[in-house]
Amino acid sequence: MTRNWESQAQKGRDILNNSIPKQWLLPVDRLPPVSQKSVVDFPRKSGLLSERELIITDMSATALVTEMGNGKLSAEEVMVAFLKRAVLGHQLLNFATEFMTDEAIARAKEHDEYYRRTGKLVGPLHGIPISVKEHISMKNRTCNTGYVAWVDKVTTEDALLLQLLSKAGAIFHVRTNQPQSLMHLCCSNNITGTTLNPLNRTLSPGGSSGGEGASMGFRCAPLGIGSDIGGSIRCPAAFCGAYGFRPSSLRNPVTGLKVAASGQETIRGVVGPMASRSIEDLELFQRAVLEQEPWDIETSLMPVTWKSADPKRDMTVAIMWDDGCVRPHPPVTRALRHAKEKLVAAGVKVVDWKPYKHQHGWEVIRALYYPDAGSKQRELLAESGEPARPLTDWALSYGQSMPLSHPEAWALHDQRDIYRDEYHALINSRGVDFILSPTYPAAAAVMGESQYWNYTAIWNLVDLPSVVFPSGITVDPKVDVLSEEDRKYVPRDEVDEREWRKYQDPERYEGASVGLQIAGRRFKDEETLAAAKAVEEIVREKRHSKI
Amino acid sequence: MTRNWESQAQKGRDILNNSIPKQWLLPVDRLPPVSQKSVVDFPRKSGLLSERELIITDMSATALVTEMGNGKLSAEEVMVAFLKRAVLGHQLLNFATEFMTDEAIARAKEHDEYYRRTGKLVGPLHGIPISVKEHISMKNRTCNTGYVAWVDKVTTEDALLLQLLSKAGAIFHVRTNQPQSLMHLCCSNNITGTTLNPLNRTLSPGGSSGGEGASMGFRCAPLGIGSDIGGSIRCPAAFCGAYGFRPSSLRNPVTGLKVAASGQETIRGVVGPMASRSIEDLELFQRAVLEQEPWDIETSLMPVTWKSADPKRDMTVAIMWDDGCVRPHPPVTRALRHAKEKLVAAGVKVVDWKPYKHQHGWEVIRALYYPDAGSKQRELLAESGEPARPLTDWALSYGQSMPLSHPEAWALHDQRDIYRDEYHALINSRGVDFILSPTYPAAAAVMGESQYWNYTAIWNLVDLPSVVFPSGITVDPKVDVLSEEDRKYVPRDEVDEREWRKYQDPERYEGASVGLQIAGRRFKDEETLAAAKAVEEIVREKRHSKI
Repeated sequence: MTRNWESQAQKGRDILNNSIPKQWLLPVDRLPPVSQKSVVDFPRKSGLLSERELIITDMSATALVTEMGNGKLSAEEVMVAFLKRAVLGHQLLNFATEFMTDEAIARAKEHDEYYRRTGKLVGPLHGIPISVKEHISMKNRTCNTGYVAWVDKVTTEDALLLQLLSKAGAIFHVRTNQPQSLMHLCCSNNITGTTLNPLNRTLSPGGSSGGEGASMGFRCAPLGIGSDIGGSIRCPAAFCGAYGFRPSSLRNPVTGLKVAASGQETIRGVVGPMASRSIEDLELFQRAVLEQEPWDIETSLMPVTWKSADPKRDMTVAIMWDDGCVRPHPPVTRALRHAKEKLVAAGVKVVDWKPYKHQHGWEVIRALYYPDAGSKQRELLAESGEPARPLTDWALSYGQSMPLSHPEAWALHDQRDIYRDEYHALINSRGVDFILSPTYPAAAAVMGESQYWNYTAIWNLVDLPSVVFPSGITVDPKVDVLSEEDRKYVPRDEVDEREWRKYQDPERYEGASVGLQIAGRRFKDEETLAAAKAVEEIVREKRHSKI
Repeated sequence: MTRNWESQAQKGRDILNNSIPKQWLLPVDRLPPVSQKSVVDFPRKSGLLSERELIITDMSATALVTEMGNGKLSAEEVMVAFLKRAVLGHQLLNFATEFMTDEAIARAKEHDEYYRRTGKLVGPLHGIPISVKEHISMKNRTCNTGYVAWVDKVTTEDALLLQLLSKAGAIFHVRTNQPQSLMHLCCSNNITGTTLNPLNRTLSPGGSSGGEGASMGFRCAPLGIGSDIGGSIRCPAAFCGAYGFRPSSLRNPVTGLKVAASGQETIRGVVGPMASRSIEDLELFQRAVLEQEPWDIETSLMPVTWKSADPKRDMTVAIMWDDGCVRPHPPVTRALRHAKEKLVAAGVKVVDWKPYKHQHGWEVIRALYYPDAGSKQRELLAESGEPARPLTDWALSYGQSMPLSHPEAWALHDQRDIYRDEYHALINSRGVDFILSPTYPAAAAVMGESQYWNYTAIWNLVDLPSVVFPSGITVDPKVDVLSEEDRKYVPRDEVDEREWRKYQDPERYEGASVGLQIAGRRFKDEETLAAAKAVEEIVREKRHSKI
């Protein structure tokens, strides 16, 4: 049995290894030592990328499209630059599951040819390299979703989202790693192993879109695609110093996303964009998808077009310092304080957010993740005989040990809807437009320690659109020491204590970026992205750079 | 035990009987004999209503609002006229579960006072009497949903839909009957008994919104509210010669609709308007509700405002003559032929609709009605000890005998979504805008024989907006004889045979109205109502009358 699952897993590794463009691999002796934590500066030092390629891979998708549109860049050189960077990233972070080098370059050349012939771009994402989480099906390629049992299952169609992005001009060059079961806020499986965090390789890149987190953090693509049922876009974005957007459910098409519990809709997973450089790129992605009216094909989606939104001049931002369950670590609180100062100085109305029954919310959502007691996940593990990873056991332990009856599950649906309606009514009655909060109790989790989900999962339950962006604050063990007050802190319960104790040694988090989360009102996806962009510009005094 | 459920049931009858405004009851000897089938002409003959009241109760909601707006009618006289007609209707048809006479008149007086003071109407439904299916909660009133077990359960809040309608000026004057379990296309329960069809009292009024069907057919209100998970708005509208609209799901708010399987969302029940006089009134209702943006309160709803729609000049209407499973009776086919002739003569493009796997669709939806094998319904019957009505047993027999596992139910969710996407793609690829079809194999079911659901249930599964309107054709046993070809018809299977044999004696259906059904494309609620209005005007050469 053991031999069998290992040989199956090897097939997955073979697909990956055979796909790596060998011409861009660096010899091991030119790579930084394994003990080197941060590798974000290595592209420049590696000698693999030209100065022009370094500049290209430092650009946002929006800027790249502009420059391809005025002929200053070709799609081919953009693609080659990101492919080289992705190969390097993979050597350092183990984030890929498959490269699609030749196809991506061939398609980029077609785009260039189209542009030469017509003077026009193929679409709003013309020539933009996009990395894609592996469980999003690609035609004639395997799709394993992190399960050994599915390692050689080939899909016959592109996921609908990929079809739309492709029509908009995007090109997929690399598929990325995910954890076994998709239910870790971390990224390891028995096929392609564990992905590392580019800012500090002893930290998790987050998950489940952890390969995407690393891809964004290392700038292997300006845009990536993740999926999120409890934080799986937002945590990796935060952990890796990047951007991520969890749209409202029933907005982006999910046809062709392969999951263990297909048809489960108690809590709807969503698919959404991640970006290495800017919130503007998240909006670019959303607009390109929704202007194609995907609800005419995937008819479960809401028929709601993407509207332009400007940030409200007089918006009210409420800061949730603590969710009432788990106290955030000092660097996270520092990032919120910093954000508050900047926002207040810029004249934004800032108030405190008193969380509403987050513990209750967690009890509801954790039960709804596994009404079947995780039978589908367990079946898939049993099918190959692969061992469960520790965080798979952890995630499954959230569920009940026996399946719920349908009426028990229905009672939870009602609780979910009541809680969502109540939360929404509260946001309205308090006159709050956006809630700014931690994404996670820590800046990032130490590898294997991603245990607390509810700073993100709560918005899956309430189904609020939410954006993660880097606060500009990174953990500095000399600055982010435990204060007198911190030392006196008496945790509220075991969970709070478990998370709080993780910070006893700040050195463990050195160099981690604190990503903050902005949630908007129900259905206000466009407004939330617009507000997040304005908030980030204020908090980071950010200006856009051009080539 | 028997005594106990009967005394409980008596409580429900007491609520009804105590609520009837006795001043308008006719002595039994002035009522038509029980053997008289049609009672639609009786209001004029009864002597209870004045000529003016007869005119008022013959008007559409749209016309009534206009006349109240220019001061020609008062809300009070409108309310009194419909209350009188409703009391008469109840004596003849047993359609009510509770009258709210004093409250309704008091509220009408408030509206009149408001109008006198301001010269303005309260809202777009100013003073419109609306009858309401009983399971739609009303504050401080019982809500039994047809179950003896719930006969004295008082609710503390109005259903959200009622709150919105009330804000728009509507007034609720009578609550209406429904079958035990809500899952009959008929209307009988162990509390308030069986409702009759005003066109022919040996026929069923349809169901489950059968009290509403009778209310509309007898014009006890210009507008009513039904709910529909398999045809429960559309069948009673068709059977009673009235109008009904099944909106897309997640459009109208369902908070406060009391059902046995609360939280079940495998197939979503919807709530929608019925009307006695016109499609225009259905649109009036929808607009009044949706312009209040109910998704800001019930956050599961789609945030889609109600748009004005004009019928497309060049629309293509496809006629589904037969669903491939059960052959419609001759009068239904005659109504479709008549409609086709008129449409073609008016220059509308008419094609035939080849149904797409309706038997498969039925297998999916019937399994999804009861993933729990009907445990909640059975529990409620057991709770009081009341016996199951024959059609309750019938409906429960559609489900599986054992609960589905969650993964089995999820596989059916996928099948549902795939079928819906495929059906929608087919409508698009065939270039069809609307599908005109029977509502039911017969013009109406003989009492107790409402057994075949799938002319309506199929659109619940595909989730298409659908409108029922009277074709203008009523069953004439002299005209609607079985043709030579009909006599030779060899039914496809037992179900087809069962339904076909019901027409061996056409006399049974004498005077029944044939209601036709128009389904529109996914999410095109506004366009479907607009098209249905145009189609009805063409088919019936209809002109609107004013007071």
